Amino acid sequence: MKAIVFDKELKLDTNYPKPVPQKGEALIRVTLAGICNTDYEITKGYMGYVGVLGHEFVGVVEEVNGEDQSLVGKRVVAEISYGCNDPDCEWCAKKNYRHCPNRHTLGIWRKDGCFAEYMTMPTNVLFEVPDNVTDEQAVFVEPLAAACEITEQLHIEPTQKVVVLGDGKLGLTTALTLNAQNFDVLLVGKHQNKLDIAKAQGVEVKLLNEFKIEKKYDVVVEATGSASGFETSMALTKPRGVLVLKSTVASGKELNLAPIVIDEITVLGSRCGQFAPALRLLKNKRIDFKPFISNIYSIDDAIEAFEANKSKESIKILIRI
Amino acid sequence: MKAIVFDKELKLDTNYPKPVPQKGEALIRVTLAGICNTDYEITKGYMGYVGVLGHEFVGVVEEVNGEDQSLVGKRVVAEISYGCNDPDCEWCAKKNYRHCPNRHTLGIWRKDGCFAEYMTMPTNVLFEVPDNVTDEQAVFVEPLAAACEITEQLHIEPTQKVVVLGDGKLGLTTALTLNAQNFDVLLVGKHQNKLDIAKAQGVEVKLLNEFKIEKKYDVVVEATGSASGFETSMALTKPRGVLVLKSTVASGKELNLAPIVIDEITVLGSRCGQFAPALRLLKNKRIDFKPFISNIYSIDDAIEAFEANKSKESIKILIRI
Repeated sequence: MKAIVFDKELKLDTNYPKPVPQKGEALIRVTLAGICNTDYEITKGYMGYVGVLGHEFVGVVEEVNGEDQSLVGKRVVAEISYGCNDPDCEWCAKKNYRHCPNRHTLGIWRKDGCFAEYMTMPTNVLFEVPDNVTDEQAVFVEPLAAACEITEQLHIEPTQKVVVLGDGKLGLTTALTLNAQNFDVLLVGKHQNKLDIAKAQGVEVKLLNEFKIEKKYDVVVEATGSASGFETSMALTKPRGVLVLKSTVASGKELNLAPIVIDEITVLGSRCGQFAPALRLLKNKRIDFKPFISNIYSIDDAIEAFEANKSKESIKILIRI
Repeated sequence: MKAIVFDKELKLDTNYPKPVPQKGEALIRVTLAGICNTDYEITKGYMGYVGVLGHEFVGVVEEVNGEDQSLVGKRVVAEISYGCNDPDCEWCAKKNYRHCPNRHTLGIWRKDGCFAEYMTMPTNVLFEVPDNVTDEQAVFVEPLAAACEITEQLHIEPTQKVVVLGDGKLGLTTALTLNAQNFDVLLVGKHQNKLDIAKAQGVEVKLLNEFKIEKKYDVVVEATGSASGFETSMALTKPRGVLVLKSTVASGKELNLAPIVIDEITVLGSRCGQFAPALRLLKNKRIDFKPFISNIYSIDDAIEAFEANKSKESIKILIRI
């Protein structure tokens, strides 16, 4: 089958072995997938991953290895991590597979990803896509779940002031999600055309160079992925406020952490989320992801798609399979 | 009067002007003071402070500028920050002066400190020392309050595992405080003689080189003040656990913050605390600070005292005034 594989370099393999579902797994025919910046980071060495890339997708179940065949023929998405299911694993017991120390993560860690004609995943992490949600919306469920994760971790009071820093797909998704949850949110970024996408859906926006940096936000979401963005975020966080760190790339720079102590800031690392609240937002049409789609490439043009993803002009690049 | 002043260099000034209490302030004759690492940091440029150093002290009120004279003659300690008391200041309204944006902080920011024969402080931040608490114990109330601050900010469950990293005075005080509050706490450090001080008061201790680094602690307190200590702390924090950052000096190094996001760690900056719970611990003899005292110097030998404070062998250096 065709698959986009990273092994020292990125390549389209037209003869990759079709996966065989193990006990409890479904075989899924992938129809549409999205490129995430994590995919790009992996091609630069992140996680030391080798294999089929990709973790954002929508597909159709072709086969289930197990008694319950009810998912066969269904359109599905999948939470990207699954656990060891050992009875002694506290994370699997809580169905929080994303922190199981022996987890597998789709296209990131010990599990071939979704940039391929076929993939497998355990049925217990699959979610059926509601009929009124198109593939082009459903393919955004994973980053949308990651934005929903913030309110799983943190109680934001309805009167608190929230600012999201960064107008890339991560920042846009986060601002739109918090806005859909009725929080008082401001999105700050450098690109008027990107800010306009959030503005059109009701989010208050501001260009960074017209924005006054002051310590007045109860919650600051760092979604720029840069060390300078992290420092600006600290400068925006009220004493005893919360700085939500959404990106893994704000690292390897000289950082002065003293403001965290002086202002008693909480820095909250936030990663993947659960799919149920994200699917609810999609089903209820609370966010429209169509304006995010910069281009859709065929899997045959995947290398070109990865190049397009690097461009500052791009928001989301999809791959049709 | 005699005062230890920092102005480009550290010096004993024998002719410093005796302060005059303003409306609402008390004039305090300082009897005993303690050197904190923050004092040492200031002599290296921290906060750009110029003036009388010192914020840990016990003294006797000689005079009050105000109607209520009840504190005159009383032995007192003082919370180190006081606020603007503007009716619009949300921090002063909560009596949380340590986050008032217009605060003054004793010997650190816009307020002459306590390494002097006399000092002034507003009476609303003074606390009378209980009769059964000696000067040699009372002088530790400020760092003790900073350790109590952790449970003001964070709900630690009684069954959670807590580890404190670093066996300097900050780590020792924190471990003893959490132990006095009946938490399941382990202190890890590099110096058996320092660990023994905590062990003698019931704290479980371990030498760093005999300690297995694994992600199993719900709460990790970083009290080493080093970048490597911060990295070890991240490696000890369970997914979704809390890393309490107690030191302002773990900075200016290349730090990889990715583990914070991947494991969804909360980094909680923690600074000064309220005195009431700290005085309660002292009054009830829950912690004995006598073994902390490495030496007591006269104010005349203050420069020598600062030198002694730099030694790795020292825990607490006091100054008798």
